[in-house]
Amino acid sequence: MFDSLNLPVPAIAGTLPIVGQAPERPDPHLIDQLKAVGTATASALMHRMGVRQTFIEGPLPRMPGAKVVGPVVTLQFMPRREDVIAGIAPGEGEEQLEKSTALWSVFETVQPGDILAVQAFGDLKTGCMGDMLITFFKGRGGIGIVVDGCIRDWPRVKNIGTPVWTRGFTPNYASQSTLLPWAVNVPIACSDVLVIPGDVMIADGDGVVLVPAKMVPLVLEHGLDHDEWEEFSRARLSEGGNIRKYYPLSEEGMAEYEAWKKARVDQD
Amino acid sequence: MFDSLNLPVPAIAGTLPIVGQAPERPDPHLIDQLKAVGTATASALMHRMGVRQTFIEGPLPRMPGAKVVGPVVTLQFMPRREDVIAGIAPGEGEEQLEKSTALWSVFETVQPGDILAVQAFGDLKTGCMGDMLITFFKGRGGIGIVVDGCIRDWPRVKNIGTPVWTRGFTPNYASQSTLLPWAVNVPIACSDVLVIPGDVMIADGDGVVLVPAKMVPLVLEHGLDHDEWEEFSRARLSEGGNIRKYYPLSEEGMAEYEAWKKARVDQD
Amino acid sequence: MFDSLNLPVPAIAGTLPIVGQAPERPDPHLIDQLKAVGTATASALMHRMGVRQTFIEGPLPRMPGAKVVGPVVTLQFMPRREDVIAGIAPGEGEEQLEKSTALWSVFETVQPGDILAVQAFGDLKTGCMGDMLITFFKGRGGIGIVVDGCIRDWPRVKNIGTPVWTRGFTPNYASQSTLLPWAVNVPIACSDVLVIPGDVMIADGDGVVLVPAKMVPLVLEHGLDHDEWEEFSRARLSEGGNIRKYYPLSEEGMAEYEAWKKARVDQD
Amino acid sequence: MFDSLNLPVPAIAGTLPIVGQAPERPDPHLIDQLKAVGTATASALMHRMGVRQTFIEGPLPRMPGAKVVGPVVTLQFMPRREDVIAGIAPGEGEEQLEKSTALWSVFETVQPGDILAVQAFGDLKTGCMGDMLITFFKGRGGIGIVVDGCIRDWPRVKNIGTPVWTRGFTPNYASQSTLLPWAVNVPIACSDVLVIPGDVMIADGDGVVLVPAKMVPLVLEHGLDHDEWEEFSRARLSEGGNIRKYYPLSEEGMAEYEAWKKARVDQD
Amino acid sequence: MFDSLNLPVPAIAGTLPIVGQAPERPDPHLIDQLKAVGTATASALMHRMGVRQTFIEGPLPRMPGAKVVGPVVTLQFMPRREDVIAGIAPGEGEEQLEKSTALWSVFETVQPGDILAVQAFGDLKTGCMGDMLITFFKGRGGIGIVVDGCIRDWPRVKNIGTPVWTRGFTPNYASQSTLLPWAVNVPIACSDVLVIPGDVMIADGDGVVLVPAKMVPLVLEHGLDHDEWEEFSRARLSEGGNIRKYYPLSEEGMAEYEAWKKARVDQD
Amino acid sequence: MFDSLNLPVPAIAGTLPIVGQAPERPDPHLIDQLKAVGTATASALMHRMGVRQTFIEGPLPRMPGAKVVGPVVTLQFMPRREDVIAGIAPGEGEEQLEKSTALWSVFETVQPGDILAVQAFGDLKTGCMGDMLITFFKGRGGIGIVVDGCIRDWPRVKNIGTPVWTRGFTPNYASQSTLLPWAVNVPIACSDVLVIPGDVMIADGDGVVLVPAKMVPLVLEHGLDHDEWEEFSRARLSEGGNIRKYYPLSEEGMAEYEAWKKARVDQD
Repeated sequence: MFDSLNLPVPAIAGTLPIVGQAPERPDPHLIDQLKAVGTATASALMHRMGVRQTFIEGPLPRMPGAKVVGPVVTLQFMPRREDVIAGIAPGEGEEQLEKSTALWSVFETVQPGDILAVQAFGDLKTGCMGDMLITFFKGRGGIGIVVDGCIRDWPRVKNIGTPVWTRGFTPNYASQSTLLPWAVNVPIACSDVLVIPGDVMIADGDGVVLVPAKMVPLVLEHGLDHDEWEEFSRARLSEGGNIRKYYPLSEEGMAEYEAWKKARVDQD
Repeated sequence: MFDSLNLPVPAIAGTLPIVGQAPERPDPHLIDQLKAVGTATASALMHRMGVRQTFIEGPLPRMPGAKVVGPVVTLQFMPRREDVIAGIAPGEGEEQLEKSTALWSVFETVQPGDILAVQAFGDLKTGCMGDMLITFFKGRGGIGIVVDGCIRDWPRVKNIGTPVWTRGFTPNYASQSTLLPWAVNVPIACSDVLVIPGDVMIADGDGVVLVPAKMVPLVLEHGLDHDEWEEFSRARLSEGGNIRKYYPLSEEGMAEYEAWKKARVDQD
Repeated sequence: MFDSLNLPVPAIAGTLPIVGQAPERPDPHLIDQLKAVGTATASALMHRMGVRQTFIEGPLPRMPGAKVVGPVVTLQFMPRREDVIAGIAPGEGEEQLEKSTALWSVFETVQPGDILAVQAFGDLKTGCMGDMLITFFKGRGGIGIVVDGCIRDWPRVKNIGTPVWTRGFTPNYASQSTLLPWAVNVPIACSDVLVIPGDVMIADGDGVVLVPAKMVPLVLEHGLDHDEWEEFSRARLSEGGNIRKYYPLSEEGMAEYEAWKKARVDQD
Repeated sequence: MFDSLNLPVPAIAGTLPIVGQAPERPDPHLIDQLKAVGTATASALMHRMGVRQTFIEGPLPRMPGAKVVGPVVTLQFMPRREDVIAGIAPGEGEEQLEKSTALWSVFETVQPGDILAVQAFGDLKTGCMGDMLITFFKGRGGIGIVVDGCIRDWPRVKNIGTPVWTRGFTPNYASQSTLLPWAVNVPIACSDVLVIPGDVMIADGDGVVLVPAKMVPLVLEHGLDHDEWEEFSRARLSEGGNIRKYYPLSEEGMAEYEAWKKARVDQD
Repeated sequence: MFDSLNLPVPAIAGTLPIVGQAPERPDPHLIDQLKAVGTATASALMHRMGVRQTFIEGPLPRMPGAKVVGPVVTLQFMPRREDVIAGIAPGEGEEQLEKSTALWSVFETVQPGDILAVQAFGDLKTGCMGDMLITFFKGRGGIGIVVDGCIRDWPRVKNIGTPVWTRGFTPNYASQSTLLPWAVNVPIACSDVLVIPGDVMIADGDGVVLVPAKMVPLVLEHGLDHDEWEEFSRARLSEGGNIRKYYPLSEEGMAEYEAWKKARVDQD
Repeated sequence: MFDSLNLPVPAIAGTLPIVGQAPERPDPHLIDQLKAVGTATASALMHRMGVRQTFIEGPLPRMPGAKVVGPVVTLQFMPRREDVIAGIAPGEGEEQLEKSTALWSVFETVQPGDILAVQAFGDLKTGCMGDMLITFFKGRGGIGIVVDGCIRDWPRVKNIGTPVWTRGFTPNYASQSTLLPWAVNVPIACSDVLVIPGDVMIADGDGVVLVPAKMVPLVLEHGLDHDEWEEFSRARLSEGGNIRKYYPLSEEGMAEYEAWKKARVDQD
């Protein structure tokens, strides 16, 4: 009755993909230091500073033991509309068509040390990317991928070695289901966290925490010290120490810790 | 320990709200004609044309019997981040602050006949707007509101008389929960439908259907005829007519319908 | 690349729709008596008899005040598969095609007093039927429709006056989404209740309760008496009676009830 | 094989129902004043004071137009365990057994003006109470019921006239499904709001908001004024007033409001 | 009060389990070839051919690294009804009773190379089978099990070595919760995929994809070639090749691939 | 505008945490014997005895291969309320404040062999405890932790070696989200199972099953024998035995088993 290839195309289709400014990456030295801060410490500190939604609930760690810290490039999916698709790459077949979307574009913006974050509305039937693009991602120096949705080709991706945090896996490809790759390096909603390109993610076995770019120094200032006294407390607790004295440090515990710290510094 | 008012502000906060181009509204004459087409007919036609995601599942009709048809202005929420909020209107208290967001801006773009569509991620704890803004909306000639989330002040809104389609109601205000008004007149995800400003919505007791602006003539062309033969069939069925003959029209039914239609035109 | 019309068709497509035996309807006199028993009483009695899953959670009453009691004819949807569809009515267009499915067949089996129950897996995007079929249903004497999913054309269906219990409404038609009308008068899963054609449903403002055909006499035997003493208790409680005496009846309350009942019979 | 009536009974069963202290009700004069404050104003004020979880998401208003304000008595369900049930009222049949639970006890603690709040874990298959108990509740002067779950006998309850806020309706009775009435007048989790007996609820068409007993004066102090300037703003907006001036009041709008207020007082 | 063993039994109980025709298995040679095609390739190809619902979302791979391909035998659960159960094997105790259901029957139809697929409505509290039946399954040559629900005895099943795809695990047995084994080798709804006995499943670390029996040759024809050029592209990308040239192959990339392929064939 | 530190405090805050009586632990000899009974056997037996809700659906095993059996101490979270928090430890900073809650208290009640069970309403954003408290837990001899919610610090907790069953992981700390540690050693709702302190849990790769303290002897009596004949049947089935003879044991199978058992005893 109808021929979907001849659908009238909305003007915006001709401007796709939407591509935001390349993000300014934070000082690599700060990123290096941040590796010593855990997701738990970072999340707690930002909460106390008044920033409450930093944990990206949903994407689970898929590579046991992996931890990555780095600046974020973003990819945004939007709901699929066939009249829009008809205008993205007129004359191309469906397989070549994806090349003209945000999906291919975002990978070309990746720089060494980057983390790719994807807004996919938690969808469980869209495979946002597969082993080919992730192979390419690794080649460009990307260090981790966080998807509020799924990827495909998990058996092969696992072998590539790039850590991923996802809601799951599916054999479906990126525009086989209800979504469409839409924009690159724009602010995204990753689960219920606002992610701005250039922000920093800490991702480990507890999940993924976002640190706004400008808050990295604040988190470092308080986080490094926090993780140091936790190391002290952990040692004491494993030797049978009193939980009320050592966690968190009571005044008495703090004094003991200061002494321990001083001794350690003197030793070095 | 910390003072959230002194959070370092990301650069983008200074550019908020993001405001897209005012949408081009379709020819009002076409909108008028479209009022004769039901959501069911429109949704079915577009599906046959190859556009599958046009029904906005989630927002329910809250004003029994209401039906509206009109072009769409859009409001987009994003996840709340306190460091962003700190930069929206520095020095303003929280209550005045909302005025500086997309929430106030969008209402000032409303023209007579417009429908306001809101991306709120289906959230059940954010009251995207209340009776004050809806009073103002009505004053500007707006005819209906579709929210993929909730509004507040329902007891008063009901009395204003502006039809709304929402997921529910809540007493919470727009930035009391996990979201933040972010952008105006940009493409949005309303449930799993992509809505571009200037597209047309048909909203009635079955829910809300999106018609891409350029597809309005197509839907009219096929939809008006469709609704006419359905009127004929309905009459026959209520008189005990055979379902296989009259719905949809078999060849025999079609002939009878053509005769009935001709007779009707001749009569006029 | 491919032409879906030429998909190889599985053999079963040629045998669709699957049509079970016409159900034996229970004695209409029993159905008449059952009208005096409420859903709450029936559900409670069957639970005490050991049958636990009789309340069909999900479909809500859409016609305020309506109550229907009657034997059930069933319609079963299954997941949509385009290769199956291609074989249902080869050569027919999509609109005529539905006519060859279980959807049209089931309505032709309806007899006066019947309730139509539909297995639709709770789907919120499939409109299992619309006003045309329901007009026809009413014409055949059907008295109510229970759908574990949605229907469409609600604004018109409301005016037909046939009570419906559904999960919601949608403008989509029956095979526009992920389901396909599959079988008629076979046992179905309506929410988590097993419904066998010829079983009896009691549907009111609390929802829908299934009574297995052979259990109708048991429910009547205990239910009619139950509802009579509740009438007595309700009167006493509204006059300030003691809850422990009157609900449920204590020994003392029971004696008082027996006297009241006797007086009432004597009066007649 | 086994006889469930002879299950070994845990000691705690003998102490059921758990009954907390009768709550101290707030000064009725304060309750009276609070009626002038809407749920939206109360929720917003408490949020600004730092108390974030006061809206009880889930229970919907079932009586159009109803609004109640009053102190709370609480009923807590817990998961059902047959060995516990066996010990609640040994020797009683199942129907009499409920009388020995928290369900009957809580109604006997109701005083005029009270609201009953029920923790039922959002369960959709347990009818926490029916028309008999609600008839009794009304007789004792109770004014409203808020259930994080369902009630049964809705067709009759609607006629009693006591406003209810529930997740839904079901014909099942209170211990027919997976829950058991457990405790009376203890702190409860009503959706994700902590409700302490004697706290105050404001319930209207937007839903239910909790006001901690000791915060009532604070809410009154700020809320009454808030609702007064909103009345002024609403009038201005409906006459075409500027949204930025009148909502919320800008400095200029505030001056105008103060003048309007003074004039009104002088008039009286 | 009542004795559930004496419930009146519906006639259908005497005909249970429902047993469909033994499926015709596809040519084993085709199955062998299909092992070279991945779930992602198969799912993408069928989508392009117009068959959209082939990925069985829900059941996750539980045996890392496992991949199986084979024809399907099916088991269908339905909601539990005690009056039906009472008629399945009158006089048998509950434990022996399961033997008379579809659960035992289906395992006796298994042939070497078969995959067992189970419709269990995604239920998380029913353990559809345990280590005993799976031991027997392996003994008959079954190669994999896909359950839209759970199994039990996971610690032992893991040691058996038969790969399973499930929604989860539970200690409950097959009719301990809300379901009942109902039919064998009938078409089933496995998540939202229609599975006809004799269809073929490809199951790997991405999940499970259904290939209709008659579509196997089509999938082979296009899939084998697809996987060959992907192998070529993967190699190029891992050496730093250009994504737009190699994935998917541009005209230039295709030429290079053809040369590579020819060289490879010549070599052999 | 407001200072949340000066919120008026409800009286109950001064009595927090609520601490129940230390549970009486069952005879350690019985616990030892119970280790031979699997979760599947225990769950099935209790179901046949009439106790239906013993499987704690939700928390998944996180330590592959782990199995623990022991008496339960309980921790109950309730929804967070800032006015309550303000009264828990007036004058303390937020970090020290948690020390004054039920979270610290419960760990001090742990005895060797105990399992800690936590009611956290299935919340996915609250990290109920982290590596410090679990280090302390292990030091006190605790053997396993079951949380109807999440914990944090998973990468470190995994190394501690204490088996945990949780819904997931999060970097958030215990009162960072919507909950508050409330009570110790009171009856709790763990998923939809009622857990009384001193009850026994069996937790393995299938999940967690609750055995009421007084039912331990009953479960032992029937469970040990059950597991013995299953061992016999498993051996027969793996040698190709007939499923109907060996599982469950038919009369013939039982005779064979009795002989096998006797032979085994004689051998020892």
